[in-house]
Amino acid sequence: MARFSSDNASGISPEIMKAIQAANDGDAMAYGNDAVTQRLEGKIAELFETDCRVFPVATGTIANCLALASIAKPYGAIFCHRNSHIEVDECGGPELFSGGSKLKLLDGANAKFSATDLEAAIEGSGLGGVHHSQVTGVSMTQASELGTIYELSEIKAIADVSHKYGLKLHMDGARFANAVATLSCSPADATWKQGVDLMSFGATKNGAMAAEAVIFFNQALGQEFEFHRKRAGQLTSKMRFISAQLEAYICDDLWLQNARHANKMAQKLATGLAALPGAELFAPVEGNQVFVKLPPALTAVLRQAGIQCHTWEGDTVRFVASFNTNPAAVEEVIDMAGRHAT
Amino acid sequence: MARFSSDNASGISPEIMKAIQAANDGDAMAYGNDAVTQRLEGKIAELFETDCRVFPVATGTIANCLALASIAKPYGAIFCHRNSHIEVDECGGPELFSGGSKLKLLDGANAKFSATDLEAAIEGSGLGGVHHSQVTGVSMTQASELGTIYELSEIKAIADVSHKYGLKLHMDGARFANAVATLSCSPADATWKQGVDLMSFGATKNGAMAAEAVIFFNQALGQEFEFHRKRAGQLTSKMRFISAQLEAYICDDLWLQNARHANKMAQKLATGLAALPGAELFAPVEGNQVFVKLPPALTAVLRQAGIQCHTWEGDTVRFVASFNTNPAAVEEVIDMAGRHAT
Amino acid sequence: MARFSSDNASGISPEIMKAIQAANDGDAMAYGNDAVTQRLEGKIAELFETDCRVFPVATGTIANCLALASIAKPYGAIFCHRNSHIEVDECGGPELFSGGSKLKLLDGANAKFSATDLEAAIEGSGLGGVHHSQVTGVSMTQASELGTIYELSEIKAIADVSHKYGLKLHMDGARFANAVATLSCSPADATWKQGVDLMSFGATKNGAMAAEAVIFFNQALGQEFEFHRKRAGQLTSKMRFISAQLEAYICDDLWLQNARHANKMAQKLATGLAALPGAELFAPVEGNQVFVKLPPALTAVLRQAGIQCHTWEGDTVRFVASFNTNPAAVEEVIDMAGRHAT
Amino acid sequence: MARFSSDNASGISPEIMKAIQAANDGDAMAYGNDAVTQRLEGKIAELFETDCRVFPVATGTIANCLALASIAKPYGAIFCHRNSHIEVDECGGPELFSGGSKLKLLDGANAKFSATDLEAAIEGSGLGGVHHSQVTGVSMTQASELGTIYELSEIKAIADVSHKYGLKLHMDGARFANAVATLSCSPADATWKQGVDLMSFGATKNGAMAAEAVIFFNQALGQEFEFHRKRAGQLTSKMRFISAQLEAYICDDLWLQNARHANKMAQKLATGLAALPGAELFAPVEGNQVFVKLPPALTAVLRQAGIQCHTWEGDTVRFVASFNTNPAAVEEVIDMAGRHAT
Repeated sequence: MARFSSDNASGISPEIMKAIQAANDGDAMAYGNDAVTQRLEGKIAELFETDCRVFPVATGTIANCLALASIAKPYGAIFCHRNSHIEVDECGGPELFSGGSKLKLLDGANAKFSATDLEAAIEGSGLGGVHHSQVTGVSMTQASELGTIYELSEIKAIADVSHKYGLKLHMDGARFANAVATLSCSPADATWKQGVDLMSFGATKNGAMAAEAVIFFNQALGQEFEFHRKRAGQLTSKMRFISAQLEAYICDDLWLQNARHANKMAQKLATGLAALPGAELFAPVEGNQVFVKLPPALTAVLRQAGIQCHTWEGDTVRFVASFNTNPAAVEEVIDMAGRHAT
Repeated sequence: MARFSSDNASGISPEIMKAIQAANDGDAMAYGNDAVTQRLEGKIAELFETDCRVFPVATGTIANCLALASIAKPYGAIFCHRNSHIEVDECGGPELFSGGSKLKLLDGANAKFSATDLEAAIEGSGLGGVHHSQVTGVSMTQASELGTIYELSEIKAIADVSHKYGLKLHMDGARFANAVATLSCSPADATWKQGVDLMSFGATKNGAMAAEAVIFFNQALGQEFEFHRKRAGQLTSKMRFISAQLEAYICDDLWLQNARHANKMAQKLATGLAALPGAELFAPVEGNQVFVKLPPALTAVLRQAGIQCHTWEGDTVRFVASFNTNPAAVEEVIDMAGRHAT
Repeated sequence: MARFSSDNASGISPEIMKAIQAANDGDAMAYGNDAVTQRLEGKIAELFETDCRVFPVATGTIANCLALASIAKPYGAIFCHRNSHIEVDECGGPELFSGGSKLKLLDGANAKFSATDLEAAIEGSGLGGVHHSQVTGVSMTQASELGTIYELSEIKAIADVSHKYGLKLHMDGARFANAVATLSCSPADATWKQGVDLMSFGATKNGAMAAEAVIFFNQALGQEFEFHRKRAGQLTSKMRFISAQLEAYICDDLWLQNARHANKMAQKLATGLAALPGAELFAPVEGNQVFVKLPPALTAVLRQAGIQCHTWEGDTVRFVASFNTNPAAVEEVIDMAGRHAT
Repeated sequence: MARFSSDNASGISPEIMKAIQAANDGDAMAYGNDAVTQRLEGKIAELFETDCRVFPVATGTIANCLALASIAKPYGAIFCHRNSHIEVDECGGPELFSGGSKLKLLDGANAKFSATDLEAAIEGSGLGGVHHSQVTGVSMTQASELGTIYELSEIKAIADVSHKYGLKLHMDGARFANAVATLSCSPADATWKQGVDLMSFGATKNGAMAAEAVIFFNQALGQEFEFHRKRAGQLTSKMRFISAQLEAYICDDLWLQNARHANKMAQKLATGLAALPGAELFAPVEGNQVFVKLPPALTAVLRQAGIQCHTWEGDTVRFVASFNTNPAAVEEVIDMAGRHAT
């Protein structure tokens, strides 16, 4: 049975499972005062080639929510794309943790917004006017919710506009590995060198059990984070087991290897499906997600055969490849689709 | 080196680690739609001999906060003991998730409050008066923050008073296993049969990696829980790994075995320390925690020898035994203390 | 000097000022336990020809916020028009008082949304899906922020769709009087007879000093309102002075007389301005607001002459007529504009 | 009928009513952009002999809540006396507007806490510890909820301790006039010269209709206030009518004259009642409030005769004198009580 419903359906990378077991050797101080957590910040700083503050948490939603809480005002607003996970898929979490800050929505093809549209929206938002929610930050998703990827120049332009108006730039990197794998640049190039102030660095979708890190390149923004995290019920007592996942994740480029595999599987699947009669890609396939319009009858056939995928909207179906997607499973989907396409 | 700083310093029970590994066999639906999570509610219902709603989460703080959010009003208040974890050690989490509900503090020896004091406090709280925060619930900790344990009759009396005024009763069971081990009663007897409406059922301190369950015996109270949990960033995508911990935890009485061992170690330690000249127990030792006043010089000697413990207040020191506390380590502490006590 | 910047710039109707003075005769019980407040609910019930709960508050923003708080969930969402005051002009107030509920925006010409668009949006909002904010209510503004007015049939259609999905319908009636004056129907017809569940009944813009009422036609929704109001700092101690304003406002049809005058002045102004070369109405003039595109040079001339108006967007200017707008001032504007239009 | 239930039961001072009427002369810019509001800050600065930021609001509860919001953190705490209005009588308002900050309660005779007790409480609050709510401010009430008054030296000591730990000091001055009248000092001496950072300057209880001012002596703390006020629904559109009340209130020492009269009436009443057999003052009478234990039968007689007073707790009754308390009414109470005391 081939699972393409979500990269969250995949399990734990063997290397990461091994690290969890290794971290279980003996007792350790609780609440992050253990050796693994203590050295993690240094390792991530090395990966990103800059000093930074690093806070492990357990889910992507909380990483985003607490990151936003660090740059939001209760009477404020954050700009993001209309399709963004923080707007669509977090059931009001950002509003909870920011104390009521509003998400203001930007349009833009393929789930990406442009610096130009951002600037126009900021200008129209009533900056300084007491009647209006005051914008304090911007959040972009890399890779985006449609699997597309911002070019470095696009990130820089967005960061420049944000900073021009005193706004902080957050990157939701739940699939950051997939983006870096495609961009073939350094993590530093993909983030702070373009002006990203803080990010949610995701590992769960790409082979961890439950591990994300909020990283502050702009370290001053992280000063109150530990209190926000505790209050959110995310100061995990046995934190070493989250930190160990993150450490294994970035060790020996595991994170990039996993992402490269997933991206490759997605490309293969996209090529196969797009060639079918009646099929059409809904968005460019740049990471590990394939959004494709398929004839409904064909989708039904695939589902009946146990191939899991997610209905996006209308006839568009989402297939997500993971670090452990079997090439044979991809071929199975393409073959079966080919046999039934008319 | 003997660690008695916290049961959170202990690692993962071998049985639970094994279950995590087993859960990693292949892909599974995300967000709790996996087989392990699906069957967990039934198993917990069996353990508690009643239908109930069960929601796995990752930390004790969030279990408490979301449980309270289910019985709180933004303009409301919850009664709890002055020493309770929700008041002292959650950095405002209950206030966050309840939308601003107030914690109103009760006194009482050994970190336990009485039904009588509760009733007097409710009567004095301005029920129905628009100027005053309106009490909606009561939270008790079992075993308490001083390691003491409410008798079943005490629980029933507290539940009866709570229900008399229409309040819901929450039990913070971060160390529930230690309490049940001591009470030698069924989990049902220790909770809903006395009138507990909902509980935080803790596993992390007693051998899990990061796993707690919010259990609603009063199922109607849990109707909105899944939205609260999602909004809190606690709808873990790969939830099977939390559920697997909980399943292993309650399988073959592992939870009680672990707790019995910890309690036994605490008794041994308490007996040894209390016998020393200048030493005095600060609270009765009924679970896995020992609070003992020690001559400061003696505490310093123990610490220098690498024996970890936690300063409670003044000369009182807390030693916590765990599922994996080595009897030899207990003897080591007692011996060393004996040699240096004067 | 002619003021058309806002109906908020007008002062207090003489009848209302008289009522404030009359209410100052002697002492009275505080916090609404005075005679005026006690009888107000009955008088408003009479006006609306139905039993209802009535709560005086001091501002339109708080009336809206507390009304929404009564139908919102912290993890929820409320639909409203993109131009609505609650979205644009309340600096995050609705998010504060609802505990973080999201406002979801609808499009629609002339600041009005249709039942059809509402239904499509509800259908697309992920009802029941744990990842998505759950819609609980709908808010419509009558007269709208562009001075347009929903027909009774439009209100009914919106109410029917709302109720079909279990949502409650709120009407922001900051300029309700202007709408009723135009619709020439009874207040009952304009509200609960079409399905409105609760409303913000505004008086301030139409001659009161600072007085609004939140009215619950669906009385069950108002059960917790008094606590929300107190917590909001809006349980005014000397409430009789707000209640007296509201009582005078609805006495002898003062509210409708005031509104009819304002509407008439707006019509006169609109007719005069729309006839100018280069001028064009931006929205139909149905209440007391005139949105008109004017040549920028002409607007500048008017302003220099001390005629106050508000820049809406681009070349569009808003003129608002009030209960006390002097017909001579309207003529002055038209004349001056006529002399300078080219 | 003699009303001593509350100073909120009194109406509007004639001078203030006159000012409201005068402010109704013609139109004026909304939202505080009117002439009266514009000059108010200067007048209050003059009264307090220092530059300060001044924000008019309509109720004492909101003044306190928004003042606290300016010095609170969502994960924080504010110290106050157990009897304080913000704890007891605002139905969770401080928690709402501060985003969940906790109120931590201090004991102390006569509703006053000492600098010594404050320091001990701060030291025991877990400053800097991530598990604990972080204290950011202190709130004291002057005159207190039991009508007692802090000496200048007591204020200074509290301010010194607060500042030593980086906490801000708020004064709830709902009855500030009564305190200043008793202290016979300048408003400056009573506040910022002792170290008060910000205050709620009350007028409503002392002759205004609905008018309070939040005053920031530490002006930096007020930078975000206008957004907090707007979001709270307290940016009154016709603000001139609140500002006019405040202006009249401080003009020609009206506020002190009113307070002196009320204090004098309270003294007279206290002296008369305390002399009765079976009567005993519950707290020293230093302002306009009298707390006196009376034989229940006597209280019943007074009530039956239409004399209004408020049951505080047990046999203690509160009588509050106002700016307009009739000396004859005071004598009536004393005479009647004298006739029935046994």
